[in-house]
Amino acid sequence: MSAAATAQSKAPAVVNGVNVTALFGVIDAVKANPEVAKFNFRLTNKWLGGVKTRSTIKEFFGALQTHRTKANGFTVDTGEPPVLLGEDAAPNPGEWLLHSLVGCLTTSIVYHAAARDIAIDAIRSEVEGDIDLRGFLGLAPEVRKGYSAIRVRMRVKTTAPVATIESLASYSPMLEVISASVPV
Amino acid sequence: MSAAATAQSKAPAVVNGVNVTALFGVIDAVKANPEVAKFNFRLTNKWLGGVKTRSTIKEFFGALQTHRTKANGFTVDTGEPPVLLGEDAAPNPGEWLLHSLVGCLTTSIVYHAAARDIAIDAIRSEVEGDIDLRGFLGLAPEVRKGYSAIRVRMRVKTTAPVATIESLASYSPMLEVISASVPV
Repeated sequence: MSAAATAQSKAPAVVNGVNVTALFGVIDAVKANPEVAKFNFRLTNKWLGGVKTRSTIKEFFGALQTHRTKANGFTVDTGEPPVLLGEDAAPNPGEWLLHSLVGCLTTSIVYHAAARDIAIDAIRSEVEGDIDLRGFLGLAPEVRKGYSAIRVRMRVKTTAPVATIESLASYSPMLEVISASVPV
Repeated sequence: MSAAATAQSKAPAVVNGVNVTALFGVIDAVKANPEVAKFNFRLTNKWLGGVKTRSTIKEFFGALQTHRTKANGFTVDTGEPPVLLGEDAAPNPGEWLLHSLVGCLTTSIVYHAAARDIAIDAIRSEVEGDIDLRGFLGLAPEVRKGYSAIRVRMRVKTTAPVATIESLASYSPMLEVISASVPV
């Protein structure tokens, strides 16, 4: 076998846009040293006046080292709509939580499907959360402050059975955080 | 009293950039009809290939009606850094959760301080979360998938006592959702 052919046979396998060769490399590294799996995500936030805030995300720790986030990092805001006395400058914290959840569910399916060589053609989701602001406003002690229920509808285009996709989604870290207190 | 003077005396009171007159109007409306407090936040999400997703936030329901989000809505992405096989296209779901939490804590302090006529001069925060990816990877059943701990440090410039500010922050809806399963 020529050197070129050898190199070609070692080209990374890619499933669902995920480099599976690298993914198994991560898994092997974690098996060899569990410290590799310890991550710390972080950001700073500044109040912008009224009901607006701005987060700056510049770095995180993981795989034994601190990584700089791309370029100068990400700058992302929170706001509130006029009916909640804001200016609609950005999604509000409740919307950001739903964004985190659905992004995590989708990404978790994609990673785990890639590791199992399950091809995913498309994923489209709808997510919604019910919240009774009497809890936040302190007007009804029996009403919880956060979401009382979150519903997620995912349409996954794949030949794999629904139960398999559901089992892949169940690895989602943010699902675990949120579903402990909110029915999802 | 002239009509002009009457109008001036009814100018909205603003504390911390929040229209307190409108805030008490909301509170009165909720007291008169608890249905006003029922909100439903929602978004759609599309997988962009690899470990990237895009959420579109166009509307929400609250105060008895559906509201359009500003202009054509918000389009926001999730990504992953290279060490997690992504391209750093956007913050990842774990970072978005921290953004939601700190934005909610800050906004909750500001709303409730405004209602109590407590002036806030500045808020700056740092938030970080620990996560052991062995849980997500399915390599250690005893390790949880989500954050094991989240730490928030807030510096609030105000003349109010720390305990008061802490009590205002405790109204945060997203704090309630997240702290049920993660020590915050």
